[in-house]
Amino acid sequence: EMAKSSQLLDNEALRAYATYATIVLLKMMLMSLITAYFRITRKAFVNPEDAASFGKGEGAKKYLRTDQDVERARRGHLNDLENIVPFLGIGLLYALSGPELSTALMHFRIFAGSRIFHTLAYLIPLPQPGRGLSWAAGYAVTISMAYKVLKTVLYL
Amino acid sequence: EMAKSSQLLDNEALRAYATYATIVLLKMMLMSLITAYFRITRKAFVNPEDAASFGKGEGAKKYLRTDQDVERARRGHLNDLENIVPFLGIGLLYALSGPELSTALMHFRIFAGSRIFHTLAYLIPLPQPGRGLSWAAGYAVTISMAYKVLKTVLYL
Amino acid sequence: EMAKSSQLLDNEALRAYATYATIVLLKMMLMSLITAYFRITRKAFVNPEDAASFGKGEGAKKYLRTDQDVERARRGHLNDLENIVPFLGIGLLYALSGPELSTALMHFRIFAGSRIFHTLAYLIPLPQPGRGLSWAAGYAVTISMAYKVLKTVLYL
Repeated sequence: EMAKSSQLLDNEALRAYATYATIVLLKMMLMSLITAYFRITRKAFVNPEDAASFGKGEGAKKYLRTDQDVERARRGHLNDLENIVPFLGIGLLYALSGPELSTALMHFRIFAGSRIFHTLAYLIPLPQPGRGLSWAAGYAVTISMAYKVLKTVLYL
Repeated sequence: EMAKSSQLLDNEALRAYATYATIVLLKMMLMSLITAYFRITRKAFVNPEDAASFGKGEGAKKYLRTDQDVERARRGHLNDLENIVPFLGIGLLYALSGPELSTALMHFRIFAGSRIFHTLAYLIPLPQPGRGLSWAAGYAVTISMAYKVLKTVLYL
Repeated sequence: EMAKSSQLLDNEALRAYATYATIVLLKMMLMSLITAYFRITRKAFVNPEDAASFGKGEGAKKYLRTDQDVERARRGHLNDLENIVPFLGIGLLYALSGPELSTALMHFRIFAGSRIFHTLAYLIPLPQPGRGLSWAAGYAVTISMAYKVLKTVLYL
């Protein structure tokens, strides 16, 4: 029985999906570390119990504040969630819908590249339309995969 | 090998899942465009590099502000994430758990309808309990699918 | 055809994944109810149409405010999203990658335990590093599963 389900991952389009899905999820997880890094170096916390590790009483209270770098990392993280969740679902169904391998690879590579570039554009930050275009590239390939999925499986 | 994994999508419950999952993800992705539309028409940005496209120096600074319509669209988007992520995971496992096709279709249709109605109720906005009830319908069918999954596969 | 896809769930690692994924998603969904409970008991709303259920005119306006307990529940919910989404994707691919059953169970159990403890640590709240360590445990097992997935399927 083990064989049956791991045969799934013999399919090259699914292996490519598994690779790129894992990469973009790891990239998204990195945002947690970046946010934590900015919170600690900028001493900018939202929970009193977190600030308490860096000062006592009134000393801790002044660390309960917002910081531009922390907020920027958090917005990048939320934008990842908003875009990577559709990729995870639609990308899996697309990989199962029997796409040409080269076409599938192109979609996955553009998506992963767009999210990595989006994060750099957000954190550096780059002037617009850098971040906007990188967002749009990932959005467009997700729509393209959704179209293929619906064309292949539509069952309302 | 291609055949083996795309056979997955020969299953009608899985095809129905693929269809409705793609629809609700596309609807969620639409929230990004709605937020962008309100940001641009209301001139309400959070990143200085975004505001800079609409004015220079002090002119740009005044566009760094919150706007009720933008915030409303963002709340709708976050509510989508909070509810569509459980549907994606639980719905896939439910579709794999061998449900009656007609029962599965009923669950998926109610969920998709509830999320579309929720967005309309949030953006118009409709008086309560319109939005609350649409949220509850999607929540309830997700719980119902989770129950079927756990009953079928429980392995702790 | 029904048989073919539900055979997937004959695989014990996949059944374990299905069980723990459903549990953590239900736990995440619970955050919506906890937020709603605090909003209603603290009378702290963000949408005018929600506050209107609890007072009229100026009476309703005073309920448009933030509340520490509501915000705490919302932060716990967002942290769930940020961490459970990677688990859903990476965990599924990991379960398909043919792991040892006992190793897989250990990963899934630590993840589920870490998220349940994280929520308790956030809501009580526990002093740090309680919440931090529970977050790190879930993060670490997700990285470990991602490593196994990439080692098994890498296809760039």
